[in-house]
Amino acid sequence: MTTTEAKAGPRERLLEAAALLTYREGISVGIQALCQEAGVSKRSMYQLFDSKDELLAASLEQGAPAYTVWLLPTADDDRSPRERILHVFGRLESQSATPGYHGCQYLAVQIELKDPTHPASRVARGVKDGLARFFRAEAERGGASDPDLLSRQLMLIFDGASARAGIGVDDLTGLVSPTVGSLLDSAGVH
Amino acid sequence: MTTTEAKAGPRERLLEAAALLTYREGISVGIQALCQEAGVSKRSMYQLFDSKDELLAASLEQGAPAYTVWLLPTADDDRSPRERILHVFGRLESQSATPGYHGCQYLAVQIELKDPTHPASRVARGVKDGLARFFRAEAERGGASDPDLLSRQLMLIFDGASARAGIGVDDLTGLVSPTVGSLLDSAGVH
Repeated sequence: MTTTEAKAGPRERLLEAAALLTYREGISVGIQALCQEAGVSKRSMYQLFDSKDELLAASLEQGAPAYTVWLLPTADDDRSPRERILHVFGRLESQSATPGYHGCQYLAVQIELKDPTHPASRVARGVKDGLARFFRAEAERGGASDPDLLSRQLMLIFDGASARAGIGVDDLTGLVSPTVGSLLDSAGVH
Repeated sequence: MTTTEAKAGPRERLLEAAALLTYREGISVGIQALCQEAGVSKRSMYQLFDSKDELLAASLEQGAPAYTVWLLPTADDDRSPRERILHVFGRLESQSATPGYHGCQYLAVQIELKDPTHPASRVARGVKDGLARFFRAEAERGGASDPDLLSRQLMLIFDGASARAGIGVDDLTGLVSPTVGSLLDSAGVH
């Protein structure tokens, strides 16, 4: 056991177990499995979280900042809006090639929960809205003819690509960049 | 009770309950809920289906021919490949505006199961592969510069659009037709 692992308390271990198991197995993963993975008693879990729903929402929230930093280019890089948009899709492509990839977790959780008012759906939607705002800002900065439309198109491609790679029906090779490129061309973002 | 309902046997009622409840609530819906909805005992269910997995696969399989007929244009209409491709996306748009829409069931079930070898994933994938073949054939007939690429792009849009409308983050208004139009233009399918 490393120092970091030794230091992780029951709350951190539950958050990590929830992120890991719901991504791998889906939101129906049982409380018993979560507690077992975390090495925490059910009693302790319920002292830390009101419900499995709250635990799931908190686990998505905890992982979101690191995900966003990883996904988006830094604010101060000197690349063009087109390059900065393509950077995000490059990240998606590289992530989709990793073993155990099941698609974007923030999309999957919303599809699985089928309830936009669920606390975890709200967190997931917030993360994706952040991505849409990034696309919208870059589209505007890049002089897109219709920045709202372009932003919605890029979200469509992002979610479609992550979903199809996540279920193993398309490896995205040679697909995402040309598609995004066509849409950027159509919008006049060169 | 109508004559049709009176005639539906336990097998048909189970297939219908499985289709309805898994679409509305997800694949984790319990056997008890399925049997209750169908008005069938658990014992009878297990006489008809080996497992909930088999029931789910059979329910997807039963609904697939009607879905495909509804989604695709008839083989003998005299519209252009471009119009025939856009017909499918028109169907998707109109379906996404219906109450209780949760996205394409054949996509959702694969995302939820996270297991391409699950019998229901196989059925769902088969249905989507049929759509991809339709796109591929029309792309080729329409003189697309790269029919394989165009077909994959159209699947990306189809699944991205159904996923985003299904979770209620985009109503697809003014989005799908222009996006598909841009990709058809890029591929030279006029």
